[in-house]
Formats: sequence, structure tokens, C-alpha cells
Amino acid sequence: MTHRIKAAPLTAEAFAPYGDLLDASGSPDKMINQGKCGRFHDKALLDFSDGRAGISIFKGKKESLPLPLQLVERHPLGSQAFVPMSADPFLVVVARDEDGVPKDPRAFLTAPGQAINFHKSTWHGVLTPLSEPGLFAVIDRIGDGANLEEHWFKEEFIIEE
Amino acid sequence: MTHRIKAAPLTAEAFAPYGDLLDASGSPDKMINQGKCGRFHDKALLDFSDGRAGISIFKGKKESLPLPLQLVERHPLGSQAFVPMSADPFLVVVARDEDGVPKDPRAFLTAPGQAINFHKSTWHGVLTPLSEPGLFAVIDRIGDGANLEEHWFKEEFIIEE
Repeated sequence: MTHRIKAAPLTAEAFAPYGDLLDASGSPDKMINQGKCGRFHDKALLDFSDGRAGISIFKGKKESLPLPLQLVERHPLGSQAFVPMSADPFLVVVARDEDGVPKDPRAFLTAPGQAINFHKSTWHGVLTPLSEPGLFAVIDRIGDGANLEEHWFKEEFIIEE
Repeated sequence: MTHRIKAAPLTAEAFAPYGDLLDASGSPDKMINQGKCGRFHDKALLDFSDGRAGISIFKGKKESLPLPLQLVERHPLGSQAFVPMSADPFLVVVARDEDGVPKDPRAFLTAPGQAINFHKSTWHGVLTPLSEPGLFAVIDRIGDGANLEEHWFKEEFIIEE
């Protein structure tokens, strides 16, 4: 039996159990640069354990929906933020944890101007651009130690629009 | 007398005295996600002194060239990265320091897929989008203390294409 997952528009509320939506919605926390720039301040709960923050660039292969979901992963030692370097939507997959096993995967489609941050140890799908060139800035933990755990689903999931 | 500054294409080499170019040029440091994603690893020299890393979203007013340059600023306690959330070029202005005073301002135009990180205490112009909606993720220092120093030029500078 194949479980179908409908990708929903990403909202801060729906995403809250898994991480942070980083966007410019609402009023800026502060106007800077002589009133020419709104600062939406400190939007992500970052946690790098004993490591430090780093910025890396990811260039991912474009995917399209419907898309089978076979794998999720998590980083037990740090949060991970995906910041798209284009205005193209991308796919965000998350799952809740039950005794070390990911359950009930959910899928979200971002809108232009939305980035996300997965909280430390949150099950999530790999970076999934839906457009070329699939460029993202990734803010995650730099440090020693085993910071990747993968889970291959036995169930069949397919993510749909 | 007005000094004219020609905005040059941004390259890692030219920008090196001021900060880091964050892009996906060259070969990835690592292929991840079953070979579907290139990771260009840990591209920015981050330094937040006694503070911590944060991710904020900036929404800046669109400017256009030619543009007068009156003000530069620096953050003595931390680096600051500007990651564009669209594929649009933006303007990057930097200056060298001479006894606490910014000198010889230079201007760069980014290409799509380029983000930058100003090293701690580097004189730079404020965020200058050249397109709507002017959305950027900014990775900078969260913490107490005076982390902003501004300098208004007495000389007249104008930045041109």
C-alpha cells in the first residue's frame, strides 16, 4: 500500500513542531539603514552543541512532484537552515520522532521569500529543489562527531502536489 | 570634486581582503544525498566574539545606479553575511581601514548565486538590493555590546555601473 502525502503550503504554525519559518511576514522588528531596510530579527533557533556555525552552499538536483519519499535524516548535534538563493519554491519534508523512528512524514511547499531552519535532531527529507539551479545557503554545525542519522522507510510514501 | 567608483564584477580574489564570496564555483567539497547534491563546505569565516550566530531576514529598499555613497559602517564584534533570497544581483561596497577611518571605497556587483560574508570589523556599505523585493537572509552576531560603528564620508563618492 502506498501512502500519499499532499504537500501543503508552508506556514510558521504548521512547521513549528519541526523548526522555524524564516521570512519577512508581519512587521519588521526594527527599521535600519535610515529607514530603508526592515530587520526581521533572529528568526531561527540555532543549536550547534559543542560545534560552531558554518555557512555552506548546496547545489541540489532538481526534482519534481509526484516524488517517492524513501529516506529521511536527522542531525543529532545541530540545527540546519536551508536558505534558497532564488525565489523558487522548494519541497520541505519532516517527520515526528517516536522512540528514535520517524513517523507520519509531512510535506510542505515553500513560497518565494521563505527559508527554513530544522531544529536540532528533527527528522527531515534531504534538500529538494524544484527548479534549476537548486542553490541554497545552508547554516549548520561544523565540528567533530557523528551528526548524521538516516532512516529508510519500509512503507511506500509518495509526495504529491 | 566627486570621486567616481565603478562597480566591478564580484570575485573571490578581489573581495578577499574584506570577506568571503559564498558560491558554488569549482568542484564541490563533497557529494551528498546519494550523489544528488554538491556541498561547498564552510565557505565563510564567521566570528561572533562573545555573542552567538543568528539568522535574520532583511527586506531592503531597491536602489539603482548611479548611487551616491555617503555612509559605510562596520561591526567590531562580528562578521555579517548577506545571502540573497532571489537570483538578482546586488551591490556590495567595502573600504579598507586606516587608523579607524574607512579609505578607498570599492564597489562590486554580484552575479546570481553569489552571497557574501564581511569579516569582523570590515567597513562596508549597507545592504543594497538592486531589485524588488530585496529579501536577504543575514547571518550575524546576536549579543550585547556596541556592534555598530558608522562613518559618513566628507568626500563625495558616486557608484556607477
